[in-house]
Amino acid sequence: MLQLESQLSATQMPQSTKTAILAIGGAEDKVHGREILQTFWARSGAQTAKLAIIPSASREPSIIGDRYETIFKDMGVEQLEVLDIRDRDQGRDAYYLKYVDECTGVFLTGGDQLRLCGLLAETPVMERIRDRAIQGEIALAGTSAGAAVMGHHMIGGGGSGESPNRSLVDMTMGLGLVPEVIVDQHFHNRNRMARLLSAIAMHPDRLGVGIDEDTCALFEQDGIIQVLGRGTVNIIDARDLTHTNQPHIGARDPICMNNLRLHILCHGDRYHLYERRPLSSKFNE
Amino acid sequence: MLQLESQLSATQMPQSTKTAILAIGGAEDKVHGREILQTFWARSGAQTAKLAIIPSASREPSIIGDRYETIFKDMGVEQLEVLDIRDRDQGRDAYYLKYVDECTGVFLTGGDQLRLCGLLAETPVMERIRDRAIQGEIALAGTSAGAAVMGHHMIGGGGSGESPNRSLVDMTMGLGLVPEVIVDQHFHNRNRMARLLSAIAMHPDRLGVGIDEDTCALFEQDGIIQVLGRGTVNIIDARDLTHTNQPHIGARDPICMNNLRLHILCHGDRYHLYERRPLSSKFNE
Repeated sequence: MLQLESQLSATQMPQSTKTAILAIGGAEDKVHGREILQTFWARSGAQTAKLAIIPSASREPSIIGDRYETIFKDMGVEQLEVLDIRDRDQGRDAYYLKYVDECTGVFLTGGDQLRLCGLLAETPVMERIRDRAIQGEIALAGTSAGAAVMGHHMIGGGGSGESPNRSLVDMTMGLGLVPEVIVDQHFHNRNRMARLLSAIAMHPDRLGVGIDEDTCALFEQDGIIQVLGRGTVNIIDARDLTHTNQPHIGARDPICMNNLRLHILCHGDRYHLYERRPLSSKFNE
Repeated sequence: MLQLESQLSATQMPQSTKTAILAIGGAEDKVHGREILQTFWARSGAQTAKLAIIPSASREPSIIGDRYETIFKDMGVEQLEVLDIRDRDQGRDAYYLKYVDECTGVFLTGGDQLRLCGLLAETPVMERIRDRAIQGEIALAGTSAGAAVMGHHMIGGGGSGESPNRSLVDMTMGLGLVPEVIVDQHFHNRNRMARLLSAIAMHPDRLGVGIDEDTCALFEQDGIIQVLGRGTVNIIDARDLTHTNQPHIGARDPICMNNLRLHILCHGDRYHLYERRPLSSKFNE
């Protein structure tokens, strides 16, 4: 508990009643300090939280659902349900709808973001979750595939080891929880800079957010992004773009873009989503 | 010859007498259009060039020296010498010194940049080559390891697949041909964004230049960088850096940097090294 308290103070954690949307870059610490998962727990109401775990991105939903259930019960959560949605009909299940109406936090596990969107997009259960998360009524966290779905536009898959180009990334629709962003996860760990750049070239009005493993971009209601965890959150802002060869290029031609703004943020750093600027952090305050 | 002429015109190539320094990202086309090697050939004086090939970065200097000799002789070069320097004493060889005093172009092959610098740094032969290249008396090209040595600071080696951090990159001294830059090569091909970011965090006054394979950053005498080839040249400019955790961090802690400027340039794009801004290119002229 002492460890938890010192972490909360180190990350300037507000009261447990302040909801947020947490995009986690995958492979978050599940064993030791559990900083990111504890932050979600705190933002959901701590011991009084009523949590929904949605393991639908995974092809082993029972195993992954159980794993997070154990973690959050260890933290003292008594009300917890794994919403093991395996077909789209379950996305209108009356019991599930009632549960997401009453819960205080929803957790989307990792797996395949195309599977997650295929099962949940535009179902009543997901619409209700999204409305409540955007209204700030619940905390919502997604890790890996669960983070990839945050934006209106989503990276469905892609490659690495090439110059940025259109064929390096497969773009599709996300769940629109934070429509302004395009999220990429396992970011530096899987060398995804070129694919996020390729995605932003196609949608330069969106903000690219590349999140490393065991790292979290926590979106506050007021538009402030706070960074938690061991790695970096990488912001690609094409607002000042003065030149690109889009849409002249072919699928495998390299993309050029002039005047991108790039921020490499780490633990304790903050960024304003709407004002598109870094805020003072613990280091230069 | 028709093919060559159209390429020269496509890249707005000036007269063959205009020297330049060419940093090539490795794996340049040696068989088909040979655009980059032909540009070096043209900048060295075309058929009248007198070339020095320095294969010292390689552990197989004879093989790689022969390969480039064949290529440039195919282009019509009659005066060509492979300066197969294998120990530092040869770096003061009177014949080599006379040759580099009279040549019109020097080509540094790939291999290991630490080996190249170990053999050549501060030898009379290399000092003479550097002085003549900086004065614009000769064209100079380096590919892969031969490009890595261009800056005052050099990336000697490093890793990938991690958040940017100090231990991700080994910094050492380069040959100082273009002191303002830190070059990384095989850039997106080997996922080197995080290591170049790590290098720039240590030396934010330098300009990061990440060059893809079969791609060339051609430095003109007046400070204009021109891009040739199939991939991208990636410019990381930390001039507006407003915040970094350097030098507070430990070796493996992630690096943060606010307000980097990033330019992804491709064939035909131009950038001003001293003014640190992209210039109009064929697309928006």
